[in-house]
Amino acid sequence: METRARCPAASVLPARPRHRTLRPPCTVESIFRNFTIRRAALIRALTTDEEALFNKCDPGMQLLCLRGNTDGSWEVKLPESCVPISQPEPTLSINISRDKMKRHEWLQEVAVQCDAWLINISFYFAPLLIASERERLFNMINSLKTVQETFLASNTYLRICHLEEEVTCFCSELYTNQVVYIQV
Amino acid sequence: METRARCPAASVLPARPRHRTLRPPCTVESIFRNFTIRRAALIRALTTDEEALFNKCDPGMQLLCLRGNTDGSWEVKLPESCVPISQPEPTLSINISRDKMKRHEWLQEVAVQCDAWLINISFYFAPLLIASERERLFNMINSLKTVQETFLASNTYLRICHLEEEVTCFCSELYTNQVVYIQV
Repeated sequence: METRARCPAASVLPARPRHRTLRPPCTVESIFRNFTIRRAALIRALTTDEEALFNKCDPGMQLLCLRGNTDGSWEVKLPESCVPISQPEPTLSINISRDKMKRHEWLQEVAVQCDAWLINISFYFAPLLIASERERLFNMINSLKTVQETFLASNTYLRICHLEEEVTCFCSELYTNQVVYIQV
Repeated sequence: METRARCPAASVLPARPRHRTLRPPCTVESIFRNFTIRRAALIRALTTDEEALFNKCDPGMQLLCLRGNTDGSWEVKLPESCVPISQPEPTLSINISRDKMKRHEWLQEVAVQCDAWLINISFYFAPLLIASERERLFNMINSLKTVQETFLASNTYLRICHLEEEVTCFCSELYTNQVVYIQV
């Protein structure tokens, strides 16, 4: 039977805190519940609210990050100002790269960062779980599509790709016509 | 049979890049290899090199983070200066809390952050993996003790706890004697 890791001669050592400061008790179920709420918020940001997300990620601003909250909302924000920080921050600087790539590529990049952050924050709250509990948590998380997979399967992705293709075709046609005009 | 997620009408869309810019091809095996090297480096920082780690984490400095590298070294450093960042950064500000808690507690806190970062960076490099590959990767990762578990089972943890206990006893004794002296 698996037991929680113990240090040698644990009986003579200061008791290991069961729950760490400023952190609620974290079970597999509560961590997974938080994961699903944050994930749904991030998927909404990248699909239904994609236009609003794009507008909030102004490259002229300071480094911003996209965060899914446990109340189901999402926000583009500056990193937490208080130190030590209470939990891992999402990847910064999503706004800086916004205009340096095609929109569908940028959104996919953000989606990848969302997935990594969701895993990060879930396991940050799991230091008291034993190996079998961690495995159960991961299997629950992995039973859902990733944010990236959901985004790539969305109508938003399809729509943006088609728009970008149309723009490319239009520009290409314009260029061709200009060449013909100059030749005439 | 499981297949990679595809977006609707994928044939008419721009090809999804198989490997993203500035990132090497990432298989389960290569990600796990990197994980083990970084993990070993972080464990060494928290155990054998604990004194050096403590000294490098000067609370008077800017926000610092502990990083395990794929060449087996570890370093306490400022966050990456280039944006967009090439990969997730470890949690910042480990130095700020160094003198605000007992040393064994601070090291345990850092160990928890190391575990979360190791998971974070591993899955950041895994956007091309399908669900069964992610599961295999996680099982390989989870077959090893976490950094926190390894630290709590180490002689370093035992030694620090004993030292802190001795200091507490000494201070308590000193205080008791002072009280006796004042009373006399």
